[in-house]
Amino acid sequence: MTKPLPRKIAVMGAGSWGTTFAKVMADAVAENGIAVQIWARRDDAAREINERHTNSRYLRDTKLPQNISASSDRQEVLAGADLVVLAIPSQSLRAELESFKNLIEPEAVVLSLMKGLERGTDLRMSQVIAEVAELPAERIAVLSGPNLAMEIAREQPTASVVACSDEATANWIAQLCSAPYFRPYTNDDVLGVELGGIVKNIIALAVGMCDGMGMGDNTKSTVITRGLAETTRLVLALGGRLDTLAGLSGLGDLVATCSSSLSRNNTAGRLLGQGLFLDEVNDRMSQTAEGIKSARAVFDLSRTHGVDMPITEAVVMVLEGTLSVENMAQRLLARELKSEGELQ
Amino acid sequence: MTKPLPRKIAVMGAGSWGTTFAKVMADAVAENGIAVQIWARRDDAAREINERHTNSRYLRDTKLPQNISASSDRQEVLAGADLVVLAIPSQSLRAELESFKNLIEPEAVVLSLMKGLERGTDLRMSQVIAEVAELPAERIAVLSGPNLAMEIAREQPTASVVACSDEATANWIAQLCSAPYFRPYTNDDVLGVELGGIVKNIIALAVGMCDGMGMGDNTKSTVITRGLAETTRLVLALGGRLDTLAGLSGLGDLVATCSSSLSRNNTAGRLLGQGLFLDEVNDRMSQTAEGIKSARAVFDLSRTHGVDMPITEAVVMVLEGTLSVENMAQRLLARELKSEGELQ
Repeated sequence: MTKPLPRKIAVMGAGSWGTTFAKVMADAVAENGIAVQIWARRDDAAREINERHTNSRYLRDTKLPQNISASSDRQEVLAGADLVVLAIPSQSLRAELESFKNLIEPEAVVLSLMKGLERGTDLRMSQVIAEVAELPAERIAVLSGPNLAMEIAREQPTASVVACSDEATANWIAQLCSAPYFRPYTNDDVLGVELGGIVKNIIALAVGMCDGMGMGDNTKSTVITRGLAETTRLVLALGGRLDTLAGLSGLGDLVATCSSSLSRNNTAGRLLGQGLFLDEVNDRMSQTAEGIKSARAVFDLSRTHGVDMPITEAVVMVLEGTLSVENMAQRLLARELKSEGELQ
Repeated sequence: MTKPLPRKIAVMGAGSWGTTFAKVMADAVAENGIAVQIWARRDDAAREINERHTNSRYLRDTKLPQNISASSDRQEVLAGADLVVLAIPSQSLRAELESFKNLIEPEAVVLSLMKGLERGTDLRMSQVIAEVAELPAERIAVLSGPNLAMEIAREQPTASVVACSDEATANWIAQLCSAPYFRPYTNDDVLGVELGGIVKNIIALAVGMCDGMGMGDNTKSTVITRGLAETTRLVLALGGRLDTLAGLSGLGDLVATCSSSLSRNNTAGRLLGQGLFLDEVNDRMSQTAEGIKSARAVFDLSRTHGVDMPITEAVVMVLEGTLSVENMAQRLLARELKSEGELQ
């Protein structure tokens, strides 16, 4: 039994990724007459989308499709939406969701685009959604992959992963975001997909630090390799799957983030590697890099489950001022001679 | 029982990687009074190493340590050497080895730095060594990892993998190449380490082609992810191990090669992606990229073992002129919607 097409899709959040993904869906469903509406916190952002079909603050001159509209009224956006896409800063998800959960349609599916662990609770975004909106697992999905928003806005060919414990829901969402330049695959390992997207930001900080200290591709590739290994250990300990981490939302996303000069985490790491203090880095960047916010929560989670995550630990220590970046590099590379398997 | 230190180490081949690795070993063993001698085909290269301690053709002004000497006389270099390191172009290994196999000391260990499959036989370098020099497995080792030679010559921190079916031999070699900037780990999966190093050159060609066509990091990361997946399938079918491919000689080497502008394979792919013909690419480069030479052999091997390797297949078709680079990109990305697991 195939789920019927939605009447309307709501995208909560008009940042770079929310707007870009709204464009992907609008391009994907344009022929089916489905409307995509974005909730923007700021009135002027909603007005710009409606009148000029751009969101210049985040996507410069990218033209948004005609079937996208926007509003700063949560109720208007959520009314009649069978699919609700959340693209809200991860640390404010709980408060935001509390404010509009009663406006979500009774049978709507919620898709998270967010990558972060909630501070204090160490919960993943899908867990926060389940708890706050009281939704069953088959109505919560996540999307993650090697998805630099700016490249997708420019319609560069991109693949991604939609994960939901319910296969039919995952397929339904995949269908709604299959655009000529955007190809979603499905997976039922929600935990693996989500954690891959969270930890990669921390590894990208470490790679950025190496870059900022002038280290080359040999070193950076080693940090990427061991970073994926420690992410995989954490995911396996929590019940996720190895092949998820070897796929687009694990390895793929990690490599894209670590190679791109567009990545905020990579940039923040590079500034730290060049010797700036954390406060100076945050001052220089318009948004705090997600890895900076999630690192402590991921490290706490790893300790709760007895998982060794030396790169995450070193990043936390650098961020909290208990380790210098110079010593971090030494710490990561200087180990006793041993067989490679022991490292993994 | 620990194997005694060697009296002398011979490095056969004075190219970029052979000379760089000779420097690593010379730095590692300098305090033990062990001599490292390089065999250079050209007299003037040997003379430059002996008189000026440089190999400017490959390593510009990098100073080589005092305990490195060179000679164009195979017999002189191999005499008394307990460790023989081979850094010879892979397609000429068989003929070269035939010419000096009788000069190798009876108990010497042979270490291969080469990455290629022999055309016609589809044999790995360690297999060619075993066949031609008639050595047992415990006296043949390979070294591979995220090891861009130029970065190591500049003493940038680097990790690598020494693989041998015999653990004691692997540990012995690891000890002989542990320099402050070079950290070797050991592994007993010779096949996995060797194939990882071979197939990554072909994947780097594909990533270079995407780059040359102007595609972004999302696309390139997807090709890297699927490229590692198809390499892993081949290695598993041949009896190697999954964790080897997830390690430094698999993922690590692949990422380093694909990120670096120093990589010949990446560069060759980029030129092909920009629309040059294969002959033009070969004309422009001083050495043919290894992936161009190995692609057909790897593809034949995959077919013999019934392993699906769509990226390798597409690269072979582009190299052999039966597929345009534009169609290659489409072929790699356009697939029916499906679950991610089916791709792996």
